[in-house]
Amino acid sequence: MTTTDLTPRSTVHRLPERQVRDRAELHRILDEGLVAHVAVTADHGPLLLPMAYARDGNRLLLHGSTGAGLLRALADGAGVAVAVTHLDGLVYARSIFDSSMNYRSMVAFGTPRVLDGEEKLLALERLTDHLMPGRWSEVRPPTRRELSATLVLAMDLAEVSVKIRTGDPHDPDDADRSTWAGVLPLSVTTGAPVPAADLPPDTPAPASLAAARDRHQTLPVA
Amino acid sequence: MTTTDLTPRSTVHRLPERQVRDRAELHRILDEGLVAHVAVTADHGPLLLPMAYARDGNRLLLHGSTGAGLLRALADGAGVAVAVTHLDGLVYARSIFDSSMNYRSMVAFGTPRVLDGEEKLLALERLTDHLMPGRWSEVRPPTRRELSATLVLAMDLAEVSVKIRTGDPHDPDDADRSTWAGVLPLSVTTGAPVPAADLPPDTPAPASLAAARDRHQTLPVA
Repeated sequence: MTTTDLTPRSTVHRLPERQVRDRAELHRILDEGLVAHVAVTADHGPLLLPMAYARDGNRLLLHGSTGAGLLRALADGAGVAVAVTHLDGLVYARSIFDSSMNYRSMVAFGTPRVLDGEEKLLALERLTDHLMPGRWSEVRPPTRRELSATLVLAMDLAEVSVKIRTGDPHDPDDADRSTWAGVLPLSVTTGAPVPAADLPPDTPAPASLAAARDRHQTLPVA
Repeated sequence: MTTTDLTPRSTVHRLPERQVRDRAELHRILDEGLVAHVAVTADHGPLLLPMAYARDGNRLLLHGSTGAGLLRALADGAGVAVAVTHLDGLVYARSIFDSSMNYRSMVAFGTPRVLDGEEKLLALERLTDHLMPGRWSEVRPPTRRELSATLVLAMDLAEVSVKIRTGDPHDPDDADRSTWAGVLPLSVTTGAPVPAADLPPDTPAPASLAAARDRHQTLPVA
């Protein structure tokens, strides 16, 4: 399965040339992201929350507290839409109308299923190591009480819409105007790590911290 | 109106100490953000899209193509949830369970209304200048055809949930462990502007580009 299937819901009608069906591109978007937005339908309309996630093969993993209303709706079998978006730049065109953004985004639709037992533990490891690569083996494992306070869900990446915009503005009708046009790139960067106030001095920085920093460009120390 | 009203939907039940009711904080979150995620309920479940937005006083402005399904649902009076999220850092605790993220997020619920005429034009100016401060006056105004291809909506920021997490990990039960704990800060930064391939040489960079860069930290030129 190297391309995504198209359904009415996952087919891009507006600017269809921006739709991408390459599954490798979908995986890259998910693997580079840190936060997903998750929407479910509730009695009075949509609910929406930012949430940590991870990709596990062709599944999307989500987790959260059993005390969160949206998570409980998910556990009850609610249909869900999950979005991960990277904003890569502001596109300055020579008109307002053609001004745009460069981005890579995916929206997945489905019905997540609750994980238990060994499957739940493996998914938590994956979720942890997605955010902080290698962290799982640096700290103690979760207790039984902690595990039971955590809901872990998995959803197949079957119905997915991937959209990408890159490059220059498209404003051929205005190209003779003298206004500057181009792209202002945007990216996520990391600053210098801030040790916890109660951290014993000389505690070495772990590999998982370096690995998380290596994913992003790093700001110079001021 | 300096605080946000609480409704069942906008009341945080999970970790209520993270709920913030200061309207100035809500406005800061919106004014610093560039992309919102917008969810509506459709026949088969939620729809979800990233979208440009702007704040205008105590209203949220959204816009998009009249050809986009989600936008048409909004124009038809669908109830909506809109989220803006800033991920400020990864929180390394001395346990998996207490590992977290620092973030500032807002979710607003409501029913946007379509803007027309002068109100629509003013909202488009606001939307443009939110992303590219001052750009509206640097390029030609939209044509009648361009305006009719664009849907502009406004929603009161009445039912809003703001959540903020800052600072150190909270892992008192594990503070005697020798593992590193603290925060890896994350932020959005700008790279060097990339002129369009067809831009005449020596076209000066406009004030709106400098203004957009000034909002973020800037990466050093490689």
